[in-house]
Amino acid sequence: MPPADLLSRIRIVLVAPSHPGNIGAAARAMFTMGITRLVVVSPRKFPDPEASALASGAGAVLDAARVVATLDEAIEGAALAIGLSARHREFAGRVLPVRDAATEAIATAAHGDIAFVFGTEMSGLSNAELARCAIVATIPANADYASLNLAAAVQVVAYELRVAATGGTVWRAPRFAPATADEIGALFANGERTLVAMRLLDPGMPKRLIPRLQRLFARAGLEKEEVNILRGIVARIDQLIARKER
Amino acid sequence: MPPADLLSRIRIVLVAPSHPGNIGAAARAMFTMGITRLVVVSPRKFPDPEASALASGAGAVLDAARVVATLDEAIEGAALAIGLSARHREFAGRVLPVRDAATEAIATAAHGDIAFVFGTEMSGLSNAELARCAIVATIPANADYASLNLAAAVQVVAYELRVAATGGTVWRAPRFAPATADEIGALFANGERTLVAMRLLDPGMPKRLIPRLQRLFARAGLEKEEVNILRGIVARIDQLIARKER
Repeated sequence: MPPADLLSRIRIVLVAPSHPGNIGAAARAMFTMGITRLVVVSPRKFPDPEASALASGAGAVLDAARVVATLDEAIEGAALAIGLSARHREFAGRVLPVRDAATEAIATAAHGDIAFVFGTEMSGLSNAELARCAIVATIPANADYASLNLAAAVQVVAYELRVAATGGTVWRAPRFAPATADEIGALFANGERTLVAMRLLDPGMPKRLIPRLQRLFARAGLEKEEVNILRGIVARIDQLIARKER
Repeated sequence: MPPADLLSRIRIVLVAPSHPGNIGAAARAMFTMGITRLVVVSPRKFPDPEASALASGAGAVLDAARVVATLDEAIEGAALAIGLSARHREFAGRVLPVRDAATEAIATAAHGDIAFVFGTEMSGLSNAELARCAIVATIPANADYASLNLAAAVQVVAYELRVAATGGTVWRAPRFAPATADEIGALFANGERTLVAMRLLDPGMPKRLIPRLQRLFARAGLEKEEVNILRGIVARIDQLIARKER
């Protein structure tokens, strides 16, 4: 199944959020990762202008959000419900780091909807709410201050889901044609003669100068164009030496 | 080097943030992951009450934040500077997904400070600013809407750094004593007799009922206490059958 289809199986469920701004910020966080299905369980205040403001360019996610009265309605029909919890709890099921939970969610998404359930800002999910989830996912955090903002937690979960679905591909810097071994060999042959002429290299006692330069340029991975530039510099030095000697 | 020491080598650098609230939210995001060194380059408004409000319990990170005039000051002395960029750019160096960048940062942190550099909210880092970085890190995102909130981007980076430094360990559900094979065997011997008495199982043509139940409970990994509960249920059924037959 293509990544976009897998991500379309994900529901983000926010249970009783207190601040409408957090609902908007969560919508934005989801949408940056290509997740669009938001379910809000008995929000204190929603829809709300503050939610819309913080959703920024993700207004469509907010507009399409489903508002329901109970967690059971929110996870109805889902093949798997995964609850987020920072704190150590009484929980009969499996507890996974969020990365593993995301991997499992994407693996299961081919078979049906997956709900990720987030608790209220102040206290998270209750034990009764967690008991409705087959898996608890935990975001690794500072034991002294594990209090992620609600939308920040949604961002981390959505990010891990996207990486799990897509393999985490990102743009790469443009690649230019690499120099061939013989082009680089010619540059070094030329450069070595020039270094000798510059009296920087003693052919009778060469030390480590050439190997060090070779190592440097090997690490950089020389491109054709760069070899040309370097050969131009070497040629110019050759001219200067010739002029001086004249 | 212990994880906390590695994370203490990380500097989060915010270049010219427009909204003080984002500085506070970034401080909170960092601190949830155990990262405490914040450097702010020529902020529009900072310190500011909104920054403090959004820092929530991470006020100490905000109080200790260093404010400098230029990016060069912010990254001075760092062994490695890594710039965040969502957009495809002219960039001569390496472009890595944020996970790989975090891994490399933590590997390098043993040798010195690592700066993670975030651009301004509206337009990110300029090409000149990116050129000061050896690596560009990119957060995989929805190509149609890759606009992570500044603090949300800091949260993802800080999360990946923590996972890279600590291995991503989280709490586990408490484990109770597992049932022994003979306890489970006794349960099934008892249960099989009872199923026959209940006329759910025909000993002459047993089909797959017992193997299916064995498979189910094997997958669950029965605990001692659970075997006792199940044996209690079976015993109660036996009583009911005996009463009916009387």
